[in-house]
Amino acid sequence: MQYYLNGFHPGDPELRDAAPGRDTAKAGLPAELDVLIIGSGPAGLTLAAQLSAFPDIRTRIVERKSGPMDKGQADGISCRSMEMFNAFGFAHTILQQGYWVNETTFWKPDPKDPARIARNGRVQDVEDGLSEMPHMILNQARVHDMYLDIMRKSPSRLEPDYGLELAGLTIDPEAADYPVTVTLKPAEGAAGPTRTLRARYVVGCDGARSQVRRAIGRELVGDSANQAWGVMDVLAVTDFPDIRCKSLIQSADAGSVLIIPREGGYLVRIYIELEKLSEGERVNRDVTVDKLISAAQRVFAPYSLEVKDVVWWSVYEIGQRLTDKFDDVPADQVATRLPHVFIAGDACHTHSPKAGQGMNVSMGDTFNLGWKLVSVLQGRCAPEILHSYSAERQAVAQDLIDFDREWARIMSERPEDGGDGNAPKFQRYFIEHGRYTAGMSVTYKPSTLTGAARWQALAPGFPIGARLHSAPVVRLADAKPMELGHTVQADARWHVFAFCPDEDPTADGSALRKLCDFLETAPNSPIRKYTPAGADTDSRIDLRAVCQQPSREVALEALPGLLMPRKGTFGLIDYEKMFCADPNPGRDIFDLRGIDRKTGALVVVRPDQYVAHVLPFDAHAELARFFDGFLLPVAGDR
Amino acid sequence: MQYYLNGFHPGDPELRDAAPGRDTAKAGLPAELDVLIIGSGPAGLTLAAQLSAFPDIRTRIVERKSGPMDKGQADGISCRSMEMFNAFGFAHTILQQGYWVNETTFWKPDPKDPARIARNGRVQDVEDGLSEMPHMILNQARVHDMYLDIMRKSPSRLEPDYGLELAGLTIDPEAADYPVTVTLKPAEGAAGPTRTLRARYVVGCDGARSQVRRAIGRELVGDSANQAWGVMDVLAVTDFPDIRCKSLIQSADAGSVLIIPREGGYLVRIYIELEKLSEGERVNRDVTVDKLISAAQRVFAPYSLEVKDVVWWSVYEIGQRLTDKFDDVPADQVATRLPHVFIAGDACHTHSPKAGQGMNVSMGDTFNLGWKLVSVLQGRCAPEILHSYSAERQAVAQDLIDFDREWARIMSERPEDGGDGNAPKFQRYFIEHGRYTAGMSVTYKPSTLTGAARWQALAPGFPIGARLHSAPVVRLADAKPMELGHTVQADARWHVFAFCPDEDPTADGSALRKLCDFLETAPNSPIRKYTPAGADTDSRIDLRAVCQQPSREVALEALPGLLMPRKGTFGLIDYEKMFCADPNPGRDIFDLRGIDRKTGALVVVRPDQYVAHVLPFDAHAELARFFDGFLLPVAGDR
Repeated sequence: MQYYLNGFHPGDPELRDAAPGRDTAKAGLPAELDVLIIGSGPAGLTLAAQLSAFPDIRTRIVERKSGPMDKGQADGISCRSMEMFNAFGFAHTILQQGYWVNETTFWKPDPKDPARIARNGRVQDVEDGLSEMPHMILNQARVHDMYLDIMRKSPSRLEPDYGLELAGLTIDPEAADYPVTVTLKPAEGAAGPTRTLRARYVVGCDGARSQVRRAIGRELVGDSANQAWGVMDVLAVTDFPDIRCKSLIQSADAGSVLIIPREGGYLVRIYIELEKLSEGERVNRDVTVDKLISAAQRVFAPYSLEVKDVVWWSVYEIGQRLTDKFDDVPADQVATRLPHVFIAGDACHTHSPKAGQGMNVSMGDTFNLGWKLVSVLQGRCAPEILHSYSAERQAVAQDLIDFDREWARIMSERPEDGGDGNAPKFQRYFIEHGRYTAGMSVTYKPSTLTGAARWQALAPGFPIGARLHSAPVVRLADAKPMELGHTVQADARWHVFAFCPDEDPTADGSALRKLCDFLETAPNSPIRKYTPAGADTDSRIDLRAVCQQPSREVALEALPGLLMPRKGTFGLIDYEKMFCADPNPGRDIFDLRGIDRKTGALVVVRPDQYVAHVLPFDAHAELARFFDGFLLPVAGDR
Repeated sequence: MQYYLNGFHPGDPELRDAAPGRDTAKAGLPAELDVLIIGSGPAGLTLAAQLSAFPDIRTRIVERKSGPMDKGQADGISCRSMEMFNAFGFAHTILQQGYWVNETTFWKPDPKDPARIARNGRVQDVEDGLSEMPHMILNQARVHDMYLDIMRKSPSRLEPDYGLELAGLTIDPEAADYPVTVTLKPAEGAAGPTRTLRARYVVGCDGARSQVRRAIGRELVGDSANQAWGVMDVLAVTDFPDIRCKSLIQSADAGSVLIIPREGGYLVRIYIELEKLSEGERVNRDVTVDKLISAAQRVFAPYSLEVKDVVWWSVYEIGQRLTDKFDDVPADQVATRLPHVFIAGDACHTHSPKAGQGMNVSMGDTFNLGWKLVSVLQGRCAPEILHSYSAERQAVAQDLIDFDREWARIMSERPEDGGDGNAPKFQRYFIEHGRYTAGMSVTYKPSTLTGAARWQALAPGFPIGARLHSAPVVRLADAKPMELGHTVQADARWHVFAFCPDEDPTADGSALRKLCDFLETAPNSPIRKYTPAGADTDSRIDLRAVCQQPSREVALEALPGLLMPRKGTFGLIDYEKMFCADPNPGRDIFDLRGIDRKTGALVVVRPDQYVAHVLPFDAHAELARFFDGFLLPVAGDR
């Protein structure tokens, strides 16, 4: 963590100075807003937390419920979401408080006595090296708490406005400014006036029954539900030995169960297969928790399951549904009209909870949107980049729907349907799709924001369009062993990682020196063109370099100035730009990511941690052209 | 973290249920207390945080100052203190926010031009494998914040009473109860009445000018100061390349400087040698910060040092002083009188700040005392164990004084005095004493609380009397890779780690099964004798086992019941008692700590993480006898 740049302040370094006017209790909703977020679930809060770091952007988040969530349905946190949480600065708390999913076990009918279940396999839940973060389980409500804490400590001091729901939304695409007019009314049980306000952007994170989606005339389309499931969070006593492992159990005749151990060491979530539904049939609402417990007990046989306390339970149908587009611009008007209303999370895609993807993909939606809104509202990028939100995330959701449909089908199959006697289909499918459930399969297609794969071979371990796969490095100035990916924070900056060729990076005429010269002095340098006068040199594009030598062989004092930039009111030196390969066995980032040692490579990373481009180290003009594709030259800071 | 044992509750799991009567703002100081702590520095807060977990113990902490500290003098957190912080649950926040000391560099006059300094060496600050925790730097005030947070979230909801100082203290050793009478008056600038109250125990953590020490007639004895130093926390710009490493600089004629980079990436602490003092002379109080800056600049030459902002500065004399005993019992009355007043931290030992030991040793004092007070006040142990506090910690302080005196002398030597032209004496001394400065050299002598080394050879990597040197293990129930030492929390429990011999630990007649049988059924079992009826079986002595097999080869369902104890109001199973060696290269705890694979070993660990005993695996009677030495049989819960 970097802090005290502009002077020491006592107390929690995560508590930022309040922006002027934000340090007192806020006085209701203003009549005009930059961004209005409807809904404070994971999608809404990820966006609100991201925007709250920018107090010049007037953001509000409204929520129908009367206060923050106590217990949530979602609980799985993928490795990818943990990486994102790290960019927000709270991954370490999740690591401390949550359950780590280390192993998954598979159970099926004992071939010798199919009335009994028997363990059929055990796999590591996440393949080695897939992420520096584990797969975690923690109550959604706790994730909300973390985001609310970030918002509260942000310069915006942002707090949700509870008890408000959308009553109307109209868009005037011709309006010069504030094209969206929104009416908010008190939710059932809440008091207060109905208000009308105007916003530049509205983001509907208001769930499967999204009012925002309806207002922009979009629909969730997809399968009707055909399989009912029950779910319960319980404190229970059992002699089932894998109760503290994620476990998938298929019984011979009693259906399937999925066990997800929960945080704290005692709580466990159990998903229980209920009846198959006919076309259009809804789940039987007469199901009681006692019926769920009995159903689970039948699957567990011969093991006992004695439920001591039911913390939460529900029944639901599986239905995979998707919206064709995630914003208000009709497909045939993309070239001529800019989006102003977006939907995210369950508002545009619904699926079964059992693949553990709902909350993760929803947060991924708005992590994708957040920096784009910041960039447009601050004049860094042209508003056309906002089209990429729907383009990128709708494809992700489509993938998820396809995966989930298949997964739900396999989970509900009778074991003999797909089993080959050894590894049942659900076990094979689970293993094959580990990268998917870890959230690592998302790959954005080439666009203005994502380069083509022409030079991918220079760094095959950083696939363009995929998330930056972090690896260990050693920071030069203080020899700290750390993860390179942790330099990317949720701050809307772009990143250029310069992986140096095999030469002394500080020597006269070195490739690194040439790169820095270009970035510091060339008229077409993106740092020169796109950094506002008076702002820190790394405030828009953050250059960091990694060399192949161990840290003791590189002279910090000989580094190019751009890698020791002077920052803040005092012009202090930022010493955290230069890294070395970790010399310990198995930890060299050049080896781990296959970076070309002879020529090096430039890896451009988006503000949301996705790899935007891989370029030759000396491709200065290409680098400049890439940023020219979407950044706007500065005309003074906004 | 384990939580939700007695039911789910929303929100922060670190926020414990308030004990009855503690959930509202407290109504002033009661007339009778179990423990009164005077002073809210690191020693006082470590004790208060420890005691706050036990709401049946009436604890108060008073502080002369008007509120919590903003910036403190101390900043170094040794690996050992980090291990202790982990037992309190906040090490992860320190890791996130603090500076990691990775390398230390040594500078001396350039042999070619002694007017210039040149780097003479660079060493890893902490040797590999010494601790799972790094050496950290973080403002003392932030450490206070962490403790205050624990106290606030504890069942006691303990908050310091500010603005109060000791006005009088008398002890009536003959009193049946509450033998200490204390008068507290409002400190300068504070209002309110003078109060008199009675306490079972009073602990003076009130600094070098301790009123409590004076009240029990003890004195700080030792060297008069003979060397003045200045210290400043600054935001500065320099071309000195090691400004983000801990660096010791000895110039030819301008004295010495010690650089301690601080948290946040910009702040740095600089210690500057000032004049030698004559016998009895005090430091020149005319020193200004400008003089300190000039002195530092002379040492830095030829490097520049431009100070942009001075956050804090001070001058001080080095003086090593120590009290002969840390409680109120005269040395010749130890056999006949029990201690009721203790002193800790600077109240009983003072030394220079540059070895980074002051705060660490002070916290170690009260971490030693805290569980003993809990054990006596709750009737777990006879009050005679309280004598061990002074015995154990006075020896630690004497060591520290000796170390510090030598270190201060060497730091002030002119480089040519001790240099051999290659590695100056201060460089050699620093390297030789790495374990000391990391806090790992503390070794408590044999006593009722610490066994003799008769069977030490069974586990040489766990030296009796030294802190438990953690190592990796894999938890059986959920295959979580973790540190065994992290199972020891600041909860006043004793621990028995059973390192199993090379057999199937679950087999009939296995050594582990025999041990568990003994502990569950034998009349002389310490668990049977010392666990109150109705309390969880692990509430006084926590048994955990580690086997040599990888986790997939051990059947959880076949474990002895004592390793899957039923706990809490629901009788839930605690699955966190059984561990396996980590099969990954270099991570096997049996190899790392030299545990006898054939016979196994029992390792008994005190509540403060120190190894109390090493015993043969089958030495059931010896184990029982050890606990008989200090635990009191239960006569119903207190």
